[in-house]
Amino acid sequence: MLKKILLFFLLFSFADARADDGYRLWLKYDLLKNISKRAEYKRFAAFIQIRMEQTPVVRTAQEELKRGLEGMLGIQVSNTSKKSGGIIFQLDKTSPEEGFRIENKQGNIMISGGGDKGVLYGVFELLRLMQTEKSLTDLPISSAPKIRLRMLNHWDNPLGTIERGYAGASLWKWYELPETLDPRYRDYARANASVGINAVALNNVNASARFLTQEYLVKVKALADVFRPYGIQVFLSINFAAPKILGNLKTSDPLDPQVRQWWNAKTEEVYRLIPDFGGFLVKANSEGEPGPQEYGRNHADGANMLAEALRPHQGRVIWRAFVYSPDPRGDRFKEAYNEFKPLDGLFADNVVVQVKNGPIDFQSREPFHPLFGAMPQTPLAMEFQITQEYLGFSTNIVYQASLYKECLESDTYAKGKGSTVARVVDGSVHSYDFTAIAGVANTGSDRNWTGHLMSQANWYAFGRLAWNHTLSEAQIADEWVKMTWTTAPAAVVVIKNILLQSRETYVNFTTPLGLHHIMGQGIHFGPEPWLAQSARPDWTSIYYHRADSAGIGFDRTAKGSNALGLYRQEVQNLWNNPETCDLKYLLWFHHVGWNKKLSTGKTLWDELCTRYYQGVESVQQMQQEWGKVRPFVNVEMYEDVAGRLAVQHREALNWRDACVLYFQTFSKQPVPSPFKQPERTLEELKKLVAIYQLK
Amino acid sequence: MLKKILLFFLLFSFADARADDGYRLWLKYDLLKNISKRAEYKRFAAFIQIRMEQTPVVRTAQEELKRGLEGMLGIQVSNTSKKSGGIIFQLDKTSPEEGFRIENKQGNIMISGGGDKGVLYGVFELLRLMQTEKSLTDLPISSAPKIRLRMLNHWDNPLGTIERGYAGASLWKWYELPETLDPRYRDYARANASVGINAVALNNVNASARFLTQEYLVKVKALADVFRPYGIQVFLSINFAAPKILGNLKTSDPLDPQVRQWWNAKTEEVYRLIPDFGGFLVKANSEGEPGPQEYGRNHADGANMLAEALRPHQGRVIWRAFVYSPDPRGDRFKEAYNEFKPLDGLFADNVVVQVKNGPIDFQSREPFHPLFGAMPQTPLAMEFQITQEYLGFSTNIVYQASLYKECLESDTYAKGKGSTVARVVDGSVHSYDFTAIAGVANTGSDRNWTGHLMSQANWYAFGRLAWNHTLSEAQIADEWVKMTWTTAPAAVVVIKNILLQSRETYVNFTTPLGLHHIMGQGIHFGPEPWLAQSARPDWTSIYYHRADSAGIGFDRTAKGSNALGLYRQEVQNLWNNPETCDLKYLLWFHHVGWNKKLSTGKTLWDELCTRYYQGVESVQQMQQEWGKVRPFVNVEMYEDVAGRLAVQHREALNWRDACVLYFQTFSKQPVPSPFKQPERTLEELKKLVAIYQLK
Repeated sequence: MLKKILLFFLLFSFADARADDGYRLWLKYDLLKNISKRAEYKRFAAFIQIRMEQTPVVRTAQEELKRGLEGMLGIQVSNTSKKSGGIIFQLDKTSPEEGFRIENKQGNIMISGGGDKGVLYGVFELLRLMQTEKSLTDLPISSAPKIRLRMLNHWDNPLGTIERGYAGASLWKWYELPETLDPRYRDYARANASVGINAVALNNVNASARFLTQEYLVKVKALADVFRPYGIQVFLSINFAAPKILGNLKTSDPLDPQVRQWWNAKTEEVYRLIPDFGGFLVKANSEGEPGPQEYGRNHADGANMLAEALRPHQGRVIWRAFVYSPDPRGDRFKEAYNEFKPLDGLFADNVVVQVKNGPIDFQSREPFHPLFGAMPQTPLAMEFQITQEYLGFSTNIVYQASLYKECLESDTYAKGKGSTVARVVDGSVHSYDFTAIAGVANTGSDRNWTGHLMSQANWYAFGRLAWNHTLSEAQIADEWVKMTWTTAPAAVVVIKNILLQSRETYVNFTTPLGLHHIMGQGIHFGPEPWLAQSARPDWTSIYYHRADSAGIGFDRTAKGSNALGLYRQEVQNLWNNPETCDLKYLLWFHHVGWNKKLSTGKTLWDELCTRYYQGVESVQQMQQEWGKVRPFVNVEMYEDVAGRLAVQHREALNWRDACVLYFQTFSKQPVPSPFKQPERTLEELKKLVAIYQLK
Repeated sequence: MLKKILLFFLLFSFADARADDGYRLWLKYDLLKNISKRAEYKRFAAFIQIRMEQTPVVRTAQEELKRGLEGMLGIQVSNTSKKSGGIIFQLDKTSPEEGFRIENKQGNIMISGGGDKGVLYGVFELLRLMQTEKSLTDLPISSAPKIRLRMLNHWDNPLGTIERGYAGASLWKWYELPETLDPRYRDYARANASVGINAVALNNVNASARFLTQEYLVKVKALADVFRPYGIQVFLSINFAAPKILGNLKTSDPLDPQVRQWWNAKTEEVYRLIPDFGGFLVKANSEGEPGPQEYGRNHADGANMLAEALRPHQGRVIWRAFVYSPDPRGDRFKEAYNEFKPLDGLFADNVVVQVKNGPIDFQSREPFHPLFGAMPQTPLAMEFQITQEYLGFSTNIVYQASLYKECLESDTYAKGKGSTVARVVDGSVHSYDFTAIAGVANTGSDRNWTGHLMSQANWYAFGRLAWNHTLSEAQIADEWVKMTWTTAPAAVVVIKNILLQSRETYVNFTTPLGLHHIMGQGIHFGPEPWLAQSARPDWTSIYYHRADSAGIGFDRTAKGSNALGLYRQEVQNLWNNPETCDLKYLLWFHHVGWNKKLSTGKTLWDELCTRYYQGVESVQQMQQEWGKVRPFVNVEMYEDVAGRLAVQHREALNWRDACVLYFQTFSKQPVPSPFKQPERTLEELKKLVAIYQLK
């Protein structure tokens, strides 16, 4: 017996040296190391019985459960039912369609779904309980999604590139479709279903019209057919000028009868191929994309034309609010609000307006978008970014659940205290008929899907929060770490801490105290706070940080652009006064003197420097902490993260030195002790950083 | 015994249903199914003994041999030597440095290398003998490469895209380097070494200057360090304007002393990091790239400046001859010749001029480039394309060994009969000091490396021919099929036939009888013979096919552009007369009347149609044939190819119908029986094809 224990210890307790390239994500289903848990779960794993219609989604659920149980428990699951000891699927019409209940009844585990998708989500919940070694004595568990449409937006282009993608090429191999179906499409769908994602917009919002050609629609259908058994609905981003480009019409004016007819016919064609097609995602009159304003029409005119075409098929229009015009005297912060607020109430009932979490563009920290407090009559969808466009590509650990939660829990005061962004989006504040949340995907053809293994956590967290925004970032991290890395408590706590501190660390070494949009032009990587010339003023850095000899920051109070005036009075009160404004938003709303004493007791300059230096130190701490998990995790995966942390450290130093040296040209003050003046010069930093801008 | 045989049959003779994603390429090392061969090989697999210096390359050889033997034979290879029964590495200074000899001596197999790389190549040769189940009684085998530098050119960009890449994103993850080393870098190096490739240019010839920054050089060094133990040397493509872009000089004039000094210093810097750095690959004054002509200098001036910087380090300049200017009255065919021929003899001795196989640009068939017969005093490197830019991306089977061989065996008559292109390139015609051959890589981040599994054969074949251009395409196909798919004779013959017919099939349904460059603009995919407008006349299709009511084809005889005059008289004699000109080059050199009777007995129009229709039929035959191998090969890999063949069939129909219908507007003749007029109209085809050109 002692020998056996020793052998077990040898086999299972040391670092896992087998190859693991991260392909399996959080769905590893390796044999559980915890023997007592295995014994507990085995008591319910003898068979799977299906007491409902065997839809394709139910078959998916059955297959996944079998795979998970057999992998984790080292058993064979039978299809022959006994009286007890198995898992039973059934319908429970009292439950919401996608909701489920897991309970222990007469020695079986019952998974009751409001529909077949409810059963599928229940299966993944049960598997997650086992993967995280939870006890099954805490049943029953009931759950239903708070938001109806939980969606990934892919910014994938027809030829395989991905706008703002850092994990290889597109997953969709358009010129091989529909005849060739990469097995990876299914694994992609599995991963999404496992976290409750139920919709996908396949192509870039800067959309090629070709996706609406017959040639491409049969390819889209092929993907929709793969995704359907996983409960996933397909959307397409459309090019608003498609009637001109594809239909050879003279106009794409949304009020033109021929244009409307073209969209009606095209939409018919789509639904003939894909009867459960989700609808159209639209970027219009933004960053050069065509739109209704070319014809003197507004966003509602454009959206409602598409809504009319989609209505007979129960399709939806998702119309993006990410618009801004290059007015050098304006404040980009205010532009989406100014264009959309007047249209509240004018959108058709199958239109959702999709708003980015913040008013600028996926910065590492933004105040919530003022539109969330301003559109009671228009369902608003949340658009988060999962890919790390401004968050260090695939070389930086930035666990974005922290960012998502910070936004979701912000209070709009739209209907008084407690009108959080989350409750606006989930429909409970304004009783929206339809609710949606989207994440811009970070997936690509890299074997590990997301480039940085830690970025898998962002995909996971987005899905989990889309399902239930009340989950804490810590709980989600706990699940993901246990499913992905190890259940060894000593390592779980270390990895969780790294994740939970990672976003603040990134903010500190890049844009502390509310700085924003001072990164490398175009590429959005690396520091470029000195950027003063661009095709548009609102693409420079100086537009945003406004550093001068007096101080730094964008005055958005009534004395400045008054963007703050777009929020409810209660929100304004939080941020209006530089003395009391939360430091994390300080330079978002105030131009603050270099010598201004902050609540920390330091001057603004000293605090700014301190955060840049502490940001870099935090990366070093992450590196040290990561070293501790080596004995507990797969070696290949360990090394990959260790390598990327070393890159992150180098990049953090570049950010710190570039920003401190540049802002020092205005503050004219030394770096406060105990920190040391950077050894490099500003000119050296500019040269180093300029490499990202070379042709 | 009978039972055992039956069991064996069951275990090994049916389709392999295990997952295989093609990642292992031709280096699978699965247990050999042939028991008698296993027994034969085991007699020499007891140990590996090293009787020479244990260099990193030797350790690679040892490791690879151990891995191969243990996998194929199901044994453990010992490091403890016995008197006989093992494999011994030793030096043989009489052999060329990269050459080897494999012989059977006193019960051991001796691998004798001229240097450590010779041993490495000998190991891969021995492994290949076993993988293809050859007998070891045919020893000794001696081999040495005919060409010194056997190189892949990667057209990979800094942000991960690949120009003309169809297998995902770049393998090089620049922003993770040097700290993170993808394990795939090693597998890439292994694959190259296994076919004798000994050099790599990492980045696109449309080169970003950034690769010469300190930031990037340390990344390049990291890759060079991974590749070195596999005998692979690293080159960089450089941007000729780097002195201006990186050095802030006012000029990049190659005769300017400051510019020369800049290159000397930069080259020093490169060699400090990478002492065995190979040199620079240069695309200059071509398609908008900067070059010496901007300063009134010629290609030799530019190349020699770089040669001077590289000489102290034994580095080489590889200067590309792919140049052409947009003269509407000219013939692109002649332009590289006209620019380079006058420079013969003016290049420094460490410069090689790299010439594409044909005079236009990697078409599915081209006559050999006239420069190969015209530069006795300048070492010429061959540039083949492995990636399928004009050959159907990753959805068409085009086994390019046929194309490579056709070119290599063409006779330039430079020094009389037998002066084949191969013998020019390998230096035997003009006694070049240095010889080189390059293939534009088809590798990418797709799990199977090359998109189409069959395209792996092109990587393999390029390497094998670079080593020994006298190998036949059939023999190379035989090796590759056995190593990649199966050794079952019934299946080997089928797959080989598919490969060997594939290039002619592609020619037939796209550009038969010497048609060329009539594909979709920019994208180089799909038919667009009607293309008449472009940024440059020589980017249209009508520039090349010159179809009119009289006939079709480009008159390049003395009555036309006289491009034929660039060849030796003996070559001109072959092609000058439309009556006797090989039909495969007919429309390359002649404008031929629609009703002209060809040697086939058919009129030109009827022959053209016949080939388009037979091309499509050949694809259908390939599909049928492929069905026969199902029982013998891995199912996952089988399905992938089957899917792509279906795509190829669809695309072949598009090509056929588009070209036949378009050319019919000139010939005004019916499609000859037994073929039927396409059911689609030309307008439909144009629309279908236009989707590739949409934004």
